[in-house]
Amino acid sequence: MASDGVVVFQLKVWKTLEADVLFHNGDKTHSVDEQKRLAMLQLVKYLQYKFYTDGVANNNYKKKTRTMMDLNEAMAVLNLNISVKFALGVSLFANAILSLGTERHLPLYEAAWRGEYVWIVTVVCLLQIFSCVALTEVGHGSNTKKMRTTATYDPCTHEFVVHTPDFQAAKCWIGNLGKTCTYALLFAQLYTADGTCHGLHGFVTPIRDPKTLLPFPGIIVGDMGEKTGLNGIDNGFIIFQQYRIPRESLLNRLSDVTLDGEYETMFTTPEQQLGAALENLSAARVGIMGEGTNACCSAVAIAVRYAAVRKQFGPSADSELPILEYQLHQWRLFPYMAATCALKVFVADFTDQYLECVERSNSGESIEDLPASVSEIHAMVSSTKPLVTWTCRDTIQECREACGGHGFLKGFLALYLFDICVPSSGLGDLRNNFDASVTYEGDNNVLVQQTSNWLLRQWARVLDGSEVASPYHTVNFLADSADILKKKFRGQDVTNNEFILDAYQWLVCWLLRETHHRLMASQELGEDRFTARNNAQVFRARTLSLVYAENNALTYFWRRCNSRELDGRVKAVLTKLHSLYGLWCLDKHLSTFYQGGYATGSTLADLVKEGILQMCSQLKSEAVGVADALAPPDFVLNSVIGKSDGKLYDNLQAQFFHNSGAMERPTWWSEIAPKPLSKL
Amino acid sequence: MASDGVVVFQLKVWKTLEADVLFHNGDKTHSVDEQKRLAMLQLVKYLQYKFYTDGVANNNYKKKTRTMMDLNEAMAVLNLNISVKFALGVSLFANAILSLGTERHLPLYEAAWRGEYVWIVTVVCLLQIFSCVALTEVGHGSNTKKMRTTATYDPCTHEFVVHTPDFQAAKCWIGNLGKTCTYALLFAQLYTADGTCHGLHGFVTPIRDPKTLLPFPGIIVGDMGEKTGLNGIDNGFIIFQQYRIPRESLLNRLSDVTLDGEYETMFTTPEQQLGAALENLSAARVGIMGEGTNACCSAVAIAVRYAAVRKQFGPSADSELPILEYQLHQWRLFPYMAATCALKVFVADFTDQYLECVERSNSGESIEDLPASVSEIHAMVSSTKPLVTWTCRDTIQECREACGGHGFLKGFLALYLFDICVPSSGLGDLRNNFDASVTYEGDNNVLVQQTSNWLLRQWARVLDGSEVASPYHTVNFLADSADILKKKFRGQDVTNNEFILDAYQWLVCWLLRETHHRLMASQELGEDRFTARNNAQVFRARTLSLVYAENNALTYFWRRCNSRELDGRVKAVLTKLHSLYGLWCLDKHLSTFYQGGYATGSTLADLVKEGILQMCSQLKSEAVGVADALAPPDFVLNSVIGKSDGKLYDNLQAQFFHNSGAMERPTWWSEIAPKPLSKL
Repeated sequence: MASDGVVVFQLKVWKTLEADVLFHNGDKTHSVDEQKRLAMLQLVKYLQYKFYTDGVANNNYKKKTRTMMDLNEAMAVLNLNISVKFALGVSLFANAILSLGTERHLPLYEAAWRGEYVWIVTVVCLLQIFSCVALTEVGHGSNTKKMRTTATYDPCTHEFVVHTPDFQAAKCWIGNLGKTCTYALLFAQLYTADGTCHGLHGFVTPIRDPKTLLPFPGIIVGDMGEKTGLNGIDNGFIIFQQYRIPRESLLNRLSDVTLDGEYETMFTTPEQQLGAALENLSAARVGIMGEGTNACCSAVAIAVRYAAVRKQFGPSADSELPILEYQLHQWRLFPYMAATCALKVFVADFTDQYLECVERSNSGESIEDLPASVSEIHAMVSSTKPLVTWTCRDTIQECREACGGHGFLKGFLALYLFDICVPSSGLGDLRNNFDASVTYEGDNNVLVQQTSNWLLRQWARVLDGSEVASPYHTVNFLADSADILKKKFRGQDVTNNEFILDAYQWLVCWLLRETHHRLMASQELGEDRFTARNNAQVFRARTLSLVYAENNALTYFWRRCNSRELDGRVKAVLTKLHSLYGLWCLDKHLSTFYQGGYATGSTLADLVKEGILQMCSQLKSEAVGVADALAPPDFVLNSVIGKSDGKLYDNLQAQFFHNSGAMERPTWWSEIAPKPLSKL
Repeated sequence: MASDGVVVFQLKVWKTLEADVLFHNGDKTHSVDEQKRLAMLQLVKYLQYKFYTDGVANNNYKKKTRTMMDLNEAMAVLNLNISVKFALGVSLFANAILSLGTERHLPLYEAAWRGEYVWIVTVVCLLQIFSCVALTEVGHGSNTKKMRTTATYDPCTHEFVVHTPDFQAAKCWIGNLGKTCTYALLFAQLYTADGTCHGLHGFVTPIRDPKTLLPFPGIIVGDMGEKTGLNGIDNGFIIFQQYRIPRESLLNRLSDVTLDGEYETMFTTPEQQLGAALENLSAARVGIMGEGTNACCSAVAIAVRYAAVRKQFGPSADSELPILEYQLHQWRLFPYMAATCALKVFVADFTDQYLECVERSNSGESIEDLPASVSEIHAMVSSTKPLVTWTCRDTIQECREACGGHGFLKGFLALYLFDICVPSSGLGDLRNNFDASVTYEGDNNVLVQQTSNWLLRQWARVLDGSEVASPYHTVNFLADSADILKKKFRGQDVTNNEFILDAYQWLVCWLLRETHHRLMASQELGEDRFTARNNAQVFRARTLSLVYAENNALTYFWRRCNSRELDGRVKAVLTKLHSLYGLWCLDKHLSTFYQGGYATGSTLADLVKEGILQMCSQLKSEAVGVADALAPPDFVLNSVIGKSDGKLYDNLQAQFFHNSGAMERPTWWSEIAPKPLSKL
């Protein structure tokens, strides 16, 4: 599903790291502190390999960034800690400088992107520009407008005075801040000396002396301690105490403060300033989508391979069937396999569009539909990140359960890589590391509201009779909503891919109209806009956004299924996977089709359910092939129960016997040995 | 929801352990080996407290066991490792001896149950009878019939020779086996000298010398290494090499081998023998249900309390609302709160019935409906354990997500107890520890098949015109299925509790008939019984079993809502919780009501969804009160974000600042400091 070039590139990265002893670990989970140390050393080494400088130095933004993303995706599959550390510490920082900074910040941007220079600045003097992105505070996450850290301009010294009014305003959860960063990309409320607040702005803020790694005076910075997963990342908190930074720290492309303290901006409201300041963080969400689909690949590969080898029960006393033969087991796994394929293709193609859009936006060219493009991209990001991360969460969990007890095994094979990443069954750590993604970089339940708001604006245009603003064509069909909403199910073949796409268009239109009606009804009851919006989320706006994302996934995936480059056999398999993912999604919304009058009687439900079982059955003989195509090499997958050799029990035996200390008497045995009564 | 006596008893246990420094831990997750050591020391100390000997020495089986279960539930909330260790090492062992053993095993049984004697034998000489239950093998879990460990009787020496033919037949995943047990309750295929296999039997098998904790010659025993959770338990594997144990090791109540090698049994088929051997393991499933509902209590308490304090967004620039005020947030949490209440009541009442049934069964009294009772209890256990553990999994996950990033925090407060149990947010470890429960003690997806098989047998009786065999009245309504299946939705008030129960009866009947039809259709197509069963699981038998369990939960809970002892205000709240849980369950099956012709048009869907939102809104002001009722004391809950004082941010500040090493420079700082180029 990735292009050949990407596959070759990622394989090269994996092979190189496999040959490096630093990336081999022992057979136990390290202490949290040791996990952080290793993540940092591995990051430094990873940068020294200069993977992303090969041939990209002179490429354009899109190509360069895409290569960067492919690289970091490869790293994420191997070890999510390193890729997150890199994204926060280098690439998000560089991106923010590009979109928010000016000439005076350009040396830093170039340092971050141009290979040789990165090597010198980032590695040899790594800590001089190793960064974190400091937005979230203890008391506020989603409501960015309410961040309370201030940066007040002092015209006498030409400095900003950064201050944390109280503990609730302390920045927290900031990755790389706890122990290692030297700079923060800090978001704070900009005040001028007259006491006016101009909203959230970005500041490049020194945190630690790179020569000693000691924090500068005027800040209290610390590590947040152990988390459920991702313990290679040093998430930290920071309290600023009237901490002074130079005026030039302000990323001043869109707004600036003059030397003598006048605030100048290209925006008319602080809301616009806020939107612009945060928009470039979208890149992180796009990165998370890619990582999510790859995590699905690993989980599905492990579970399908396990199911092909594991036998249990059978038709007669002497024969047992691989559990993959059971309809129940197919139904548990194959829809997730199909979802993985659909989302992987969708996210890959969408990422290209996203980068193109950012490139156009940064170029400063005046392009007619740029605002509309940016809005549609934002709506897509805001629903796709939730769809992917929730699907990923469920995929990993179902795969873990489908591997039974062996899916609960952690343990390590000393010969294998990266204990922090995907050890033994691999599924527990996969889950714990990816779990953060449903709430970080925009809580999923909050993020989807941005999508539904955009969809409602498009619906208003439809009602107005004006054209929808959808340069990426994701909702052009709304223009036909009147006809679409009249459609009824007529007993068609539900496994037909075009039928599924049609049904989805009905679903989007119906949910959009319902959401709109609910909002209107609330407003007629005299509810304010805030309350009306809140009361239109459950069963309506929230579902709408996810259905919109599913529709996009199905549409993009179907486009790729019909790509001319595809080999006929591959196309046949992808077409079935498309049907299965589509039917599985439809099944989850089945009651809505009845509620909305699209279907009556039992036929639709009967056919959708039979269609799912039929697709599962048809995909059975392809499943291991698909799993092999999705899986990274064994040393990256690092799962004793999901290896490509199919020698499940031999591999388990090796793990059991070579697991360190497995057969030793515990050193503490005498503490629990029988004692004479008097000793108690 | 628990009786006052139980609450007082459990509080006493918690207070006692809180005062014991052994149960206080440091501020980091210990190494896996240290977790095992601590679990063992804590278990020994826990037994020394003799909590369960107080006043129960002379009670009957049911009362004694119930007290035992209440105690171990209290322990599970505090530290699941200890309670699992105890259940496997002492109580399951004792139960098995009672139901499978004879007089010659009675001293061991009494040792396990009678307080003083336990204290002497179990504690002072703890390891002499510290046990494990060895059933699962590397190659077989669910398919118990296929276990391949053999125990062959040698009439010359009057011994059984236990043997593991190959690695796939090694016992594995056996809790307590890896490092600590001295005995195994071993299940092996019994062979007589003539080469006849008589099926799976239980043997009390010595594993380690209690004086040295070294394994006896003739076995290879080891620890399985790190798992995703529950790392205080030493899960192990064992390979027997022609290992000899005395003839008296056989638990011979139901079947025996004479001194000269004749096999005698009260059963006519090996299947019956297998069923009898394994039935007593049901107790573990009942215990898991209790633990699951308690885990839900902890998760819900944390998330509701957090939501009451955490503010985000608001109607105007200056005001922010607690997130509990948002309909979306209520809809995310309150159904789980309602599910927790329903399941907690259901499991508590069912546990009493279960123990009564076991007591009658063990008493040897000839009671007319005993076989029917045992079967119905088995059907209930086999669907309730899956319902509870899956609901628990989803509850913990939703609660973790509803606490945003702070729900991902692990970390420890040095002042608090049991780092292995519920640290900091508490939710990550809660999930990792309870995750095992969906696949252990009977994989959920396999277990539910036992329920549907029983239901299908009852359906066959209905079709025959004979009475259903339901001494616990869970399916008496099947007798009226013809009328029930004719019912149509007529626009009633769906929040009405009786309506919900009626709708559920329709659902059970419809799914049962559907499953039966599918089986008939398969058999008419010439499919064998095995294949027909397998192809009737998805959308049919599997859903049926879960719906049956939901119906039981709703019925039992409703009975308790109508108990005369209830205070009027409490009853009002419970009634709403019943409606909410019922509607939330109905919503998940909504398409089936349309598919089956129970409903047409939008009304049912509209009303169910509105009903859910209405109940959420009505429960808002009660939510914190319900959470407080569900929560264990703070030192047991051990969650920095879920404390009863509501001082979320003060508690977080204390955690951040006192987290050990939080503000220290990493000891490894110089490894990542800038180096001159030549050093690279």
